[in-house]
Amino acid sequence: MNSRDTLVTELNTLADFKPVVPNDFKDADILMLGNLNPSVQLSVIQQMEKRPKLIILDTMNFWMDNTLEDLKEVIAEIDVITINDEEARQLSGEYSLVKAAEKIHSMGPKYVVIKKGEHGALLFNEKNVFFAPALPLEEVFDPTGAGDTFAGGFAGYLASTTNISFENMKRAIIHGSNLASFCVEQFGTERMQNLKKEDVAQRLHQFKALTQFNIELE
Amino acid sequence: MNSRDTLVTELNTLADFKPVVPNDFKDADILMLGNLNPSVQLSVIQQMEKRPKLIILDTMNFWMDNTLEDLKEVIAEIDVITINDEEARQLSGEYSLVKAAEKIHSMGPKYVVIKKGEHGALLFNEKNVFFAPALPLEEVFDPTGAGDTFAGGFAGYLASTTNISFENMKRAIIHGSNLASFCVEQFGTERMQNLKKEDVAQRLHQFKALTQFNIELE
Repeated sequence: MNSRDTLVTELNTLADFKPVVPNDFKDADILMLGNLNPSVQLSVIQQMEKRPKLIILDTMNFWMDNTLEDLKEVIAEIDVITINDEEARQLSGEYSLVKAAEKIHSMGPKYVVIKKGEHGALLFNEKNVFFAPALPLEEVFDPTGAGDTFAGGFAGYLASTTNISFENMKRAIIHGSNLASFCVEQFGTERMQNLKKEDVAQRLHQFKALTQFNIELE
Repeated sequence: MNSRDTLVTELNTLADFKPVVPNDFKDADILMLGNLNPSVQLSVIQQMEKRPKLIILDTMNFWMDNTLEDLKEVIAEIDVITINDEEARQLSGEYSLVKAAEKIHSMGPKYVVIKKGEHGALLFNEKNVFFAPALPLEEVFDPTGAGDTFAGGFAGYLASTTNISFENMKRAIIHGSNLASFCVEQFGTERMQNLKKEDVAQRLHQFKALTQFNIELE
């Protein structure tokens, strides 16, 4: 089997995965749906006792190729979608990411996060757009998991601050980018397992220095 | 002739170009050397009465392929180099842009600006790094001249503010990105010819909204 066949087999196996939401989590304010079969994602939403304040969905091109109708059904139910630039183009049929985000908005999500890997991430909300750069690194040892780390950092920040305003989502995007910048420094989850709060706080200074400027507005 | 042959012929013709610096410009504080044969760039430096406070150089892969030694000679004389990401990799032999900038620093320039097209631009100065995004646009009509507009906006801002600190260079990079975002909206120089100060001021608000965030540092 080639690697694509292997991926298809693995993802089809995951489609048989029937997650049961524990009772203690059924009233969560923030629901993060990882990149799985859309029908599995939908079943998790349906198990919630009350509609979470914010539902975030991660997905990928495989589901667009193979289960597009199911995917559209779950996309209509969620608030934030995180996908990469190529996937945004595939899902929307638009090359311009601004137009792609507009089309995806019209499919349901109020917020569209487009991940551009080493080129950072964009957050769209109606006419607002925010950009978080990836930190320029001397070496990217292993990019595996960077997108998941970004999504986890984003959702975790919103959950821990109990604030889902656009301003706070900007902070959450920066926090996700911050964590992802560590993920790629070592193999697999190694760097994340040894990460300290001080490291994250110190790197936040680097993100500020990287992007903040002071120029007079007229 | 294919397009590459045409380019080579045109650039060789440009090598015969012998610019004479007018007397009124021989004491300029800021010198911007456009993307030409390095020997032409060097001859302009040599015509200056006094060493400008800041010499900025734009170049490209053609000169790296064909006149590398001359190019290195002029690079050793200048303060700021602006090149794109692929050219930075070619010139330095390093894939990581952080390492590429370090190597290029060691060739002379205190400041290295790496242009990444639709993905923005990076400014390196020793251990400092600043990133200016490109504005996400609905449509890029014609990217021709965006890099030159960026370089002109950058140099023009520094000249008009008579301040070559790193803080002001950050503003200059934003200003260059701002102007370049207009350049691509219409064909050739059309948009630039009709551009108004208010348009630029208004778009600066968009750049602020795009990148500025407020997150507590520890």
